[in-house]
Amino acid sequence: MHRIAVIPGDGIGPEVIEQALLVLDKVSSKFGIKFDYIFIDAGGCAIDKYGVPIRDEDLELVKKCEATLLGAVGGPKWDNLPGNLRPEQALLKLRGGLKVYANLRPAVLYDELKDSSPLRREIVSKGIDILVVRELIGGMYFGPKGREIRNGEEVAYDTEIYSVSEIERIAKVAFEAAKKRRKKVTSVDKANILESSRLWREVVSRIAKDYPDVELNHMYVDNASMQLVKDPSQFDVILTSNMFGDILSDEASMIVGSIGMLASASLGEGSIGLYEPIHGTAPDIAGQDLANPVATILSAAMMLRYSFDMEDAAKAIENAVKIALKEGYRTRDIYTENCKLVGTKQMGKIICENI
Amino acid sequence: MHRIAVIPGDGIGPEVIEQALLVLDKVSSKFGIKFDYIFIDAGGCAIDKYGVPIRDEDLELVKKCEATLLGAVGGPKWDNLPGNLRPEQALLKLRGGLKVYANLRPAVLYDELKDSSPLRREIVSKGIDILVVRELIGGMYFGPKGREIRNGEEVAYDTEIYSVSEIERIAKVAFEAAKKRRKKVTSVDKANILESSRLWREVVSRIAKDYPDVELNHMYVDNASMQLVKDPSQFDVILTSNMFGDILSDEASMIVGSIGMLASASLGEGSIGLYEPIHGTAPDIAGQDLANPVATILSAAMMLRYSFDMEDAAKAIENAVKIALKEGYRTRDIYTENCKLVGTKQMGKIICENI
Ligand SMILES: CC(C)[C@H](C(=O)O)[C@@H](O)C(=O)O
Ligand SMILES: CC(C)[C@H](C(=O)O)[C@@H](O)C(=O)O
Repeated sequence: MHRIAVIPGDGIGPEVIEQALLVLDKVSSKFGIKFDYIFIDAGGCAIDKYGVPIRDEDLELVKKCEATLLGAVGGPKWDNLPGNLRPEQALLKLRGGLKVYANLRPAVLYDELKDSSPLRREIVSKGIDILVVRELIGGMYFGPKGREIRNGEEVAYDTEIYSVSEIERIAKVAFEAAKKRRKKVTSVDKANILESSRLWREVVSRIAKDYPDVELNHMYVDNASMQLVKDPSQFDVILTSNMFGDILSDEASMIVGSIGMLASASLGEGSIGLYEPIHGTAPDIAGQDLANPVATILSAAMMLRYSFDMEDAAKAIENAVKIALKEGYRTRDIYTENCKLVGTKQMGKIICENI
Repeated sequence: MHRIAVIPGDGIGPEVIEQALLVLDKVSSKFGIKFDYIFIDAGGCAIDKYGVPIRDEDLELVKKCEATLLGAVGGPKWDNLPGNLRPEQALLKLRGGLKVYANLRPAVLYDELKDSSPLRREIVSKGIDILVVRELIGGMYFGPKGREIRNGEEVAYDTEIYSVSEIERIAKVAFEAAKKRRKKVTSVDKANILESSRLWREVVSRIAKDYPDVELNHMYVDNASMQLVKDPSQFDVILTSNMFGDILSDEASMIVGSIGMLASASLGEGSIGLYEPIHGTAPDIAGQDLANPVATILSAAMMLRYSFDMEDAAKAIENAVKIALKEGYRTRDIYTENCKLVGTKQMGKIICENI
């Protein structure tokens, strides 16, 4: 019996979570495991209900679960609230509270979806299979910040700060992941300007010595943003900070042409994990059975793999998604000519049937 | 008589500067204006000669000139020096010393070079003509930074800090530029996380009120990095901070497919300016007559426009470049089938002849 905190969130969050739970139900009966779901309000819906992005007691509940599956939070409705009352604050509290320092974001180009990539065929045909390993509970997101009067005028600041141990633990995650993949880590920083990047580069280089079979190269973040577009096939694992990882993982997700397909896992020590699709709440299509549930379904697969050590069940889900694509089923976001257009629910149902 | 500081720098810097000076000579005779060149060592070559990226007395000389034309600085040879002794430090000293807070980086897709863009034809065919207005002497590049022991372990930090007046002046540059273009400013920040971005957004929104004919929209930096690849035609002027501008302007330069073509101007109060190509020193092709001199030649054109108010001469250069492209001349970096492959010198000569 595994206890999972389920946070549907806002916008399309509840619809995609619904499908992921149906998939988990199928896994449950097929693999003879029980899941216990604890539903938690977080994000805009919690602000509406309780006046805060997530209640302290709910955060405590989440911490007691083995894993968390999250839809998406936020929306224009709450965009003008002060910083500490925004839906995004729930994400930061969850990430920080669960201490999930390693955000894994695979950006994989599906053969069937090659035409959805904005990149030219010559580039795309070399294949794209990148794992972005983003530090998630440090850097500018969590460093000292404020707003004050200096020399008679208002200033505002944020601090990009990293300690040796923070860099060590995220570097290890990247090298361990690379060992099971194509054995290449590209560490992205701005060491020609930033002190924090210089420490980053030093520590990553030191950790690399423990992984002689993994190749390490360093790249400046401005160059990385170019190389992702020029030749994404050069990347295996990208290791980077919270802020740079935010930018580069979104860029990586766009070049594979299907943000509705991309899952993510945020891991800490032990088996605890937070799993969520990379996409947002898409308020414009919410409640219309238009959203692509695949990213959330694949996030559930990552949960089975990383938190519950159920590799077979994870593979079964991933395989079921591939079959659905092969059979031509597409939600609107990935639809191309001659495919079969389906809604959120039907896509979920087809994937369930393929398990 | 205009006094120009000329900084050839490292790698391909000297070769491309040579061609830009030949073009300026042609402009000089054609438009009856005299230029006086003061040659300055900065970057790796200055480290080799004097042990510092730029000497204080040389920086003072540069400050006394009306404008500075720079090739490129840096290279692997100097990559392992400590932070304050790197070639890049010369750039920071020049930018800071000249107080050029506004970095203008046009990313324009030339019709003739459409096939060099990594983006699909459907996307590229809508055209790309973006001006990135990047704040250049604030933010994480110049904020307090350091490395120290805290709680028994080493940490390193950098501070992203902006004041109201710093944001105001760069915002004005963006809105003024937009007025002369397609009248749209996209201000890029991370206001859902960063205090500095929240102040940025407030100040930019306030300045926007003075430009009722210019449309303003705000975009998060992670989304901007996706949108640049998805549909770059949506952008006119992108206004952003030093760090985000570094990343996004490089991404923008890559999507137009020809970083060897892209110029930049860094402006302060009055007519002072620092002009340089966006590309780096390309040590692998240095000294082989392979580099594309166009970015530097177009930087010289920007110098004529912004520092010397010589719009006609600037246009004459830009036009000469277009003719060279129309006639099929290409350096290696932009070569495609059935074009005429030329070297650095011949490309410069052809452009001179077209003026
Ligand atoms: C919503 C936002 C706070 C968040 C982030 O910046 O981390 C999102 O962009 C992400 O990447 O998960
Ligand atoms: C060389 C480096 C310091 C510089 C920067 O980051 O500003 C460069 O990338 C640029 O964009 O001009």
